[in-house]
Amino acid sequence: MSSHHIVRDDQEPALIIANGASCSNELLGQLLEWSPFVIVLDSAIDRVLDLNIKVDVLLGDFDRDFDAEKVKEKQYPIEIVHTPNQDKTDLEKAFDYLIEKGHKAVNVIWATGKRADHTITNITNIIAYRNQLKIVILDDHSKVFLLPNKYEKWYTANTIISLIPIGKVTGITTLNLFYSLNNEDLTIGYRTGSSNHVTNDGIVKIEHKDGDLLLMECWD
Amino acid sequence: MSSHHIVRDDQEPALIIANGASCSNELLGQLLEWSPFVIVLDSAIDRVLDLNIKVDVLLGDFDRDFDAEKVKEKQYPIEIVHTPNQDKTDLEKAFDYLIEKGHKAVNVIWATGKRADHTITNITNIIAYRNQLKIVILDDHSKVFLLPNKYEKWYTANTIISLIPIGKVTGITTLNLFYSLNNEDLTIGYRTGSSNHVTNDGIVKIEHKDGDLLLMECWD
Repeated sequence: MSSHHIVRDDQEPALIIANGASCSNELLGQLLEWSPFVIVLDSAIDRVLDLNIKVDVLLGDFDRDFDAEKVKEKQYPIEIVHTPNQDKTDLEKAFDYLIEKGHKAVNVIWATGKRADHTITNITNIIAYRNQLKIVILDDHSKVFLLPNKYEKWYTANTIISLIPIGKVTGITTLNLFYSLNNEDLTIGYRTGSSNHVTNDGIVKIEHKDGDLLLMECWD
Repeated sequence: MSSHHIVRDDQEPALIIANGASCSNELLGQLLEWSPFVIVLDSAIDRVLDLNIKVDVLLGDFDRDFDAEKVKEKQYPIEIVHTPNQDKTDLEKAFDYLIEKGHKAVNVIWATGKRADHTITNITNIIAYRNQLKIVILDDHSKVFLLPNKYEKWYTANTIISLIPIGKVTGITTLNLFYSLNNEDLTIGYRTGSSNHVTNDGIVKIEHKDGDLLLMECWD
């Protein structure tokens, strides 16, 4: 058994490598540093095999050309999970898999870029997992996660923070954001809180009453 | 005056080049073929100047380094529109500009990729322009537009079509899509119609009662 397996701790967030645009090797390396449990989605495996990283699970409907033997040869041991159900996306199936295995948190990369339908579905569908799994979507320009009703975190001044409501979100109040909200509502497509930023080094507080509010930390 | 200006017809959709990921030269070339009115957003001009295309308007808040003289030298004539108002995104300001000038339709490229907050805001904010401007967002994997309550178009079999509700959309009925909907509702984040496809060569019909429904034609 490799050292990879010895240091594993299931309290560490798992890592899902989805099938959108690849991220930088730097981001990938940071997320692999603590040897997370790694799930790769469907044909992304073709790109992942070239990266020489250890994959624990390959999950997908494999509705295109797929050579299971080649994958097993290059990655051993690996669990291959065939999920033909078309009611959910591969990413949702991976979330379900992790929940069933007792994981509490997951980072997701390669979930954005390329097809716009995949990007928007991957980002917005994390809200349905609010009480089951702490999900963070990352790419080279963004870190996206769902906010609890009360959120507090220390940020440096000028950090870009976007508040994106998935549907309608009511009663939003912010502290230490440049464009402050005071018990206000945001609605996707009509009024969002995109491209706000932190005023001063210090605690940022964001509260909301009802609805699903994503926080996006972004950089150019 | 160049031939570029002579063939211009304002009934042709304008073209906005936003500030996300660049698209392929092939897509850009297709959209430039009929010499549309071209608006470039803010610092995207740095990348556009290298492409040797004629730009009519440069619009932005120019809150970073910006050398207007360099732009004017490389592009003459060009209108530079400074839009410091922070209540709208540069893309929305470009829509407003086109509406004021009497344009009826616009294609938008470079609006996706890079920052997730920009991508999701750019895609979803087109719904507020429903009655003012026909907007199509394009990238190398996607064509996105807002559906009228009744939509009909001829498609080839297996074309991927995703129905993405911005908020909640009620009473959706489809004809000639593989996963058919019969007076059903979709809600962003909970139930979307991503990755559907056309069953047979022929007319696809999509109707909905209330709400804002995006159609995305996508390809890998």
